[in-house]
Amino acid sequence: MILTVTLNTALDITYHVPSLRPGSSHRVSEVTERPGGKGVNVARVLAALGHEVTVTGFSGGTTGRVLRDRLTEVPHLTDALVPVSGTTRRTIAVVDERSGGTTQLNEPGPAISHAEWSAFQEVYEDLLSSASAVALCGSLPPGVPVGAYAGLIRTARAAGVPALLDTSGAALRRGVAGRPDILKPNAGELAELTGSHDPLRATQDARRRGAGTVVASLGPDGLLAATPDSLWRATPPARLRGNPTGAGDSVVAGLLSSLTAHEPWPARLSRALALASATVLSPVAGEFDRAVYEELLPEVMVTGEAHAA
Amino acid sequence: MILTVTLNTALDITYHVPSLRPGSSHRVSEVTERPGGKGVNVARVLAALGHEVTVTGFSGGTTGRVLRDRLTEVPHLTDALVPVSGTTRRTIAVVDERSGGTTQLNEPGPAISHAEWSAFQEVYEDLLSSASAVALCGSLPPGVPVGAYAGLIRTARAAGVPALLDTSGAALRRGVAGRPDILKPNAGELAELTGSHDPLRATQDARRRGAGTVVASLGPDGLLAATPDSLWRATPPARLRGNPTGAGDSVVAGLLSSLTAHEPWPARLSRALALASATVLSPVAGEFDRAVYEELLPEVMVTGEAHAA
Repeated sequence: MILTVTLNTALDITYHVPSLRPGSSHRVSEVTERPGGKGVNVARVLAALGHEVTVTGFSGGTTGRVLRDRLTEVPHLTDALVPVSGTTRRTIAVVDERSGGTTQLNEPGPAISHAEWSAFQEVYEDLLSSASAVALCGSLPPGVPVGAYAGLIRTARAAGVPALLDTSGAALRRGVAGRPDILKPNAGELAELTGSHDPLRATQDARRRGAGTVVASLGPDGLLAATPDSLWRATPPARLRGNPTGAGDSVVAGLLSSLTAHEPWPARLSRALALASATVLSPVAGEFDRAVYEELLPEVMVTGEAHAA
Repeated sequence: MILTVTLNTALDITYHVPSLRPGSSHRVSEVTERPGGKGVNVARVLAALGHEVTVTGFSGGTTGRVLRDRLTEVPHLTDALVPVSGTTRRTIAVVDERSGGTTQLNEPGPAISHAEWSAFQEVYEDLLSSASAVALCGSLPPGVPVGAYAGLIRTARAAGVPALLDTSGAALRRGVAGRPDILKPNAGELAELTGSHDPLRATQDARRRGAGTVVASLGPDGLLAATPDSLWRATPPARLRGNPTGAGDSVVAGLLSSLTAHEPWPARLSRALALASATVLSPVAGEFDRAVYEELLPEVMVTGEAHAA
C-alpha cells in the first residue's frame, strides 16, 4: 500500500454565498464538508485511481470523529489515524458565487503532546513495513517538533521506503535536511526555501539542499523536475480554466502512483500533470474526472535535457 | 421555570482574524464555540440572572451533540431539545481585529419532518404546564410551517402562559396573528412588518396587528413600548461603545425576568435596557457583567405618557 501522513488533518467545509461582503451577514446557500489536510487529499486521489492507501497522522474531538466517519466511506482507503486529546481543526472555504473567488479561513490545529507524538512515531514505523512509498504532507500542528519531517524521512529510508515531502515554511526548510527522495514545492514554497524567484535556478538549488529529485509545480506553467541526472519540463495541453484547489495534491498522487509502478520520470510527470489538470477542470474542488484525466494524459508534453547540476 | 423556544438552534463559532480580505487565505488566531440561536441566548442570560430556565426546539447531528454537551455546563438551565435526524446549523462570526467589524456566515437549518414537528408540539405543550412565561425566538428551519409561531402562541394562551415573540420576516408577519402578549421587534423588523420607518408609528401599528404589547428595541435610542394603555420610552444612560451582538436577546431576557416577577412596565423596561447595555459593554459577545448591569440599572431613564391608540 501507499502511506500518506497528515499530521494536521482537517475537516474541510465549503460555503457558497451569493457575494462575500465584509461586515455583513450572509445566508450560506450551500454547505459541503469533507475530510481534508493535504495527505488525506492525496490519499483520496490515489484511492480513486485504485491504489490501496493508508492514511495516518492525528485526529481528535468532534471534528476528528466526523472526519474518520467520512473516511470509512472511501473504498481502498484504510484509516490509521492516531487519536489525540485535542480537536481536529476546521477549514472554511467561502466561495463567492458572483466573483468565483474563494476566501479561506483555517483554524489552528490541536496541540499535540509529547506522548501523542511518540505514539504516532511507533504507528508510523509499523505502517512503513507494508508501504511501497510514503507522502509526508502539509503543516505541523503545535507541539510537533519543527524538524519532524526530517526524522520521519530518515525512518522511511531505514525501512527502504521512498519518501515524498510536500510542506512549506520552517517544516520544509528543516524537512529537506532529512533528504527526501522527492520534494514537491510550488512556486511560492520554492522561492521561500531558496530565496530565488527563477523557477529553474530555485528547483536546482532545492535539490542541492538535500532532495533526491525536486518536482516544482508552477501552476499554469506545469511541472519542472530536477532529478539526479536530468531536467524535465511538463507542459499542460492548454491554458486551463477552473479551480486550482487540490491540484498540488493531485500532482503528489500522480507522482506516487507512477513511482510505485516503476515508471520513468517522463511518464511520472505526464500522469502527475494530467491528474492536476483534470482536478482543475473538475466542478467539485479537489476531485477529478477519470475520463478527463485519461483524455489529457497523452496531451501533456514532456521535454528533457541533460542535467548540468 | 421560564421556557424558551429555539426551533433553529445553532452552534455559534467565532473566528478572530487580523484582517478579513476576500479572496485570501487566513490563519484564524482565536476560535470560540458556544450554543446559539436566539432562544438559547435568552435562556443563558436568564440562567445567569438566577432563573430556572428550560430550552426547547430542535437539535441534531454532530453539531447538535456539541451544543447539548455545552448546555449541560450551564447552571439553572434544563435541556428539553427535541432530537431530529438533520444536523443543527453552524453560524460563523468572523471578527476583523483591525476594523473591529464582524462578518457573519449562517448555515441553513436542518429540514424538519412532519413527524418531528408533531413530536415538538407535544413536548412544548407538556413543558408549558410548568412554565411561568415562554419566549418564541428566531428563524424557522425548513419544514416548519410559516404560521408555526401563531399556533404555539395559541397553545400557550390556552395553558395560561404569557408568550413573547421575537422573530423576523414571514414568521413574524404570520406569528403576530397569534396575538402574542409581547412582541419584541428591532427597528428593521418593525419597518419590515409595518412598512413604516417612523418607530413610534410602527410600534403602535404593530400593536394594532395583534400583539398585546410591542417593545421595540431601537439600538442606541433605547426601547419604545406600546402597552394596551400607555406608551413608554427607555433611554440608555449614555452613548455606549461596544458589541451589539446579543443585546436584543438580553432585552427579551430582561422583559421575561421582570414579567415573571410581576413588575410594572417602567421597571421591566429599565431591567431590559440595563441588561442590553451591559451586554453591549461586555468584552465577550452576548455575555454581560452582573456588576455593570446593576450599576446601569438606576441610570436608565423611563418616561411615559397616556396612550392615544
